[in-house]
Amino acid sequence: MNNQQKTMEKIVALCKGRGFVFPGSEIYGGLANSWDYGPLGVEMKNNVKRAWMKKFVQENRYNVGLDSAILMNSEVWKASGHVATFNDPLIDCKACKMRHRADKLVEDFNAENNITDVNVESMTSEDLVNYINEKGVVCSGCGKHDFTDIRKFNLMFKTHQGVTEESSNEVYLRPETAQGIFVNFPAIQRTTRRKIPFGVCQVGKSFRNEITPGNFIFRIREFEQMELEFFCEPGTDLEWFAYWRAYCHDWLKGLNVSDENLRLRDHDAEELSFYSKATTDFEYRFPFGWGELWGIADRTDYDLTQHMEHSGKDLSYFDQEKNQRYTPYVIEPSLGADRMTLALLVEAYDEEVVDEAKNDVRTVMRFHPAIAPFKVAVLPLSKKLGEKAMEIQDMLSKDWMVDYDETGSIGKRYRREDEIGTPYCVTVDFQTVGNEEKGEVADHCVTVRDRDTMEQVRMPISELRSYLAEKLAY
Amino acid sequence: MNNQQKTMEKIVALCKGRGFVFPGSEIYGGLANSWDYGPLGVEMKNNVKRAWMKKFVQENRYNVGLDSAILMNSEVWKASGHVATFNDPLIDCKACKMRHRADKLVEDFNAENNITDVNVESMTSEDLVNYINEKGVVCSGCGKHDFTDIRKFNLMFKTHQGVTEESSNEVYLRPETAQGIFVNFPAIQRTTRRKIPFGVCQVGKSFRNEITPGNFIFRIREFEQMELEFFCEPGTDLEWFAYWRAYCHDWLKGLNVSDENLRLRDHDAEELSFYSKATTDFEYRFPFGWGELWGIADRTDYDLTQHMEHSGKDLSYFDQEKNQRYTPYVIEPSLGADRMTLALLVEAYDEEVVDEAKNDVRTVMRFHPAIAPFKVAVLPLSKKLGEKAMEIQDMLSKDWMVDYDETGSIGKRYRREDEIGTPYCVTVDFQTVGNEEKGEVADHCVTVRDRDTMEQVRMPISELRSYLAEKLAY
Ligand SMILES: [Zn+2]
Ligand SMILES: [Zn+2]
Repeated sequence: MNNQQKTMEKIVALCKGRGFVFPGSEIYGGLANSWDYGPLGVEMKNNVKRAWMKKFVQENRYNVGLDSAILMNSEVWKASGHVATFNDPLIDCKACKMRHRADKLVEDFNAENNITDVNVESMTSEDLVNYINEKGVVCSGCGKHDFTDIRKFNLMFKTHQGVTEESSNEVYLRPETAQGIFVNFPAIQRTTRRKIPFGVCQVGKSFRNEITPGNFIFRIREFEQMELEFFCEPGTDLEWFAYWRAYCHDWLKGLNVSDENLRLRDHDAEELSFYSKATTDFEYRFPFGWGELWGIADRTDYDLTQHMEHSGKDLSYFDQEKNQRYTPYVIEPSLGADRMTLALLVEAYDEEVVDEAKNDVRTVMRFHPAIAPFKVAVLPLSKKLGEKAMEIQDMLSKDWMVDYDETGSIGKRYRREDEIGTPYCVTVDFQTVGNEEKGEVADHCVTVRDRDTMEQVRMPISELRSYLAEKLAY
Repeated sequence: MNNQQKTMEKIVALCKGRGFVFPGSEIYGGLANSWDYGPLGVEMKNNVKRAWMKKFVQENRYNVGLDSAILMNSEVWKASGHVATFNDPLIDCKACKMRHRADKLVEDFNAENNITDVNVESMTSEDLVNYINEKGVVCSGCGKHDFTDIRKFNLMFKTHQGVTEESSNEVYLRPETAQGIFVNFPAIQRTTRRKIPFGVCQVGKSFRNEITPGNFIFRIREFEQMELEFFCEPGTDLEWFAYWRAYCHDWLKGLNVSDENLRLRDHDAEELSFYSKATTDFEYRFPFGWGELWGIADRTDYDLTQHMEHSGKDLSYFDQEKNQRYTPYVIEPSLGADRMTLALLVEAYDEEVVDEAKNDVRTVMRFHPAIAPFKVAVLPLSKKLGEKAMEIQDMLSKDWMVDYDETGSIGKRYRREDEIGTPYCVTVDFQTVGNEEKGEVADHCVTVRDRDTMEQVRMPISELRSYLAEKLAY
């Protein structure tokens, strides 16, 4: 099944029905576009984060981790430019009062009219207003062309720390995890005694007061990022950019994301931010279209320089081998954990015709074993075999998340495990335990069924752990 | 070294110096009492969370996980009582303008005057004011007795979701993770097809606008919780309370927290919340005194009932075996991940006299292997052995966080690893690789040094992985 055949409706339904993702605050009518990860979703998303940490920190000799606070001194966001420029251009329809993002209005207009030569991202508010007026762009709500001026709306959530709601107590929920890395650069370099090049990885929540969130967990106001800021010597940055571009691509392929559903879009000179020397967007083919998954940018020394200027602190680096002081350049691969989870849900989703004559189709989530919520399910053929089955479950639980299911026919149970992507099912039957009274000798074997091939092999319980360890390795 | 001999100064200095915990936003003068976990701290704290998830979800057949959003519909906090009653009683000194928490003022006064028969927690604002006036309690800033009335200050951080700062857009940063579990109870029960009893575990950030945070990462505004809400049949709750009380205690002992530094304080009837049938505080002996680590409470059906009343939704449970509908009772063990991390830092800290004559003392963090940031360090005796050493590091990195250090004497490197609690050091020497030119045969062996005993054993590289796997098992 290819991605164009998959629909968000089916994926969302599976997520809600099986406990991957629930609408947030549902019993109170929800909270616009907030989502909770259910029992399977939390395992899956944790697996995504773990897989990233494993390849980017544990197994990569250049990188270390960080977990900085969500609430930071507001000066951080002045220095980074977020207070001044992290805005959406809002415009209201005077006729029907509908609120729009002016850039989205223009983008939609261009898409409808097959206008492909306009770079909306580089347009100023004035450009947008002029364009809307010249082209007579209309409101998608009422069809009229009668708009207010553009108003800039800052996307940072604001709160107050301390007793009084004074401006001196204002703090923001961070809109990105990256700045926590930049401001800690000297402390990390000093305490780890690392030499350039090295990188710092962070996984954590960020918050953006998006006007138009949507597409399930693709764009949400409270989201989780996995960001790397890689510090290197100026002049080596484009080499390192290529290294991380390839490394990120390999990571995706290692989790069975197919190149068919992936597009690496290199920004041309016009599209680049003024401080960036190179940027590549990794886009994934979601059922609703191509969407940005991973942004990899050569940010030069922009961020560290901004923080040096605003803080008055020296964030430069002294290279002992070269006997030279410089401000490191930064390569930033920035990935959203929720988007990545969604991409892997989409990638894994499959409907397979098992028996055409009987119109028998199974839904199977073909997760990479590192991503699957449960690695294995233990299924006693009869409830009478529960004791032995639980013994096996307990043994396997030392190493993996193990599901246990003793209700319904074994066929139905296989299908339930297919639907949540459990790579292996271990079936305990009467031969496993034998029957002393009847003189039937226990064979101490179980049947292991493979999710994808549906093939079954029988093996001694004593070999189960090493068999699975090999199959599940990441 | 016992805990009374340990000081916060030394522990904080080690944390800052080695990259466990940095002051937040430090280059901007910080943000009051916010802390960032550095490269070692993030590993350690993740290990704490993983150890909890492993024993409470993966290996416990009753529990499943959840990761609900931080921003929830505000009705949740009305139902839970947080909007109305999650307040601190603030009082200002009219003379010097110093702000106090009235209950802390009374507590400090009682401690100073050896008054032990007053239960401050159960006092209302009126009680507090009367007590302060009767006893003539004075301001700790200026020594005068001249206070304003008590003002209730809600501890929830408030922000706005959406474009306008209207009250209809008000949302709170959750002050606890528990409510996310309660409101998802029916969805979790339905999608997992679990029968009562079962529990739901959640790890995540919570926020409290504390007036007096302090003691390093003991009390912080932005903190992380590990909460379990365990749903059981009314009447079985006290049994389950005992089960989880023992289970939590075992978990702590399993991570080498000694009973000497632990106090299980059962609340008496007077101290219990009106809805609670039993509560036990696990207190840990921090250098600054006993502090609450884990609260375990039998909350009866209080929370689910509140949410049923406010949402109008049915959160009761139908017990098929008993053919009976009831509102489950809840046992809540609630643990702070940051406090737990601090307790384990304190517990692990040791100064050991290695050679009294030479006044040689080593600082060693005696972490349980499951908690140690690095499980093993690879140390080439000479930089010339780097290639072989990195090969071994790469092999071990598939399974564990591995440090690598090639600078300074081997003795100094051992001490550096002791100070960050690395359980094993693997030393690569010239015998390991041999020297063809000199006719010296490689023995393909390395020396493994134990952090705690400082004993060394030599073993083939091929046995290293299984040797460490056994030692590091959790
Ligand atoms: Zn309109
Ligand atoms: Zn005073």
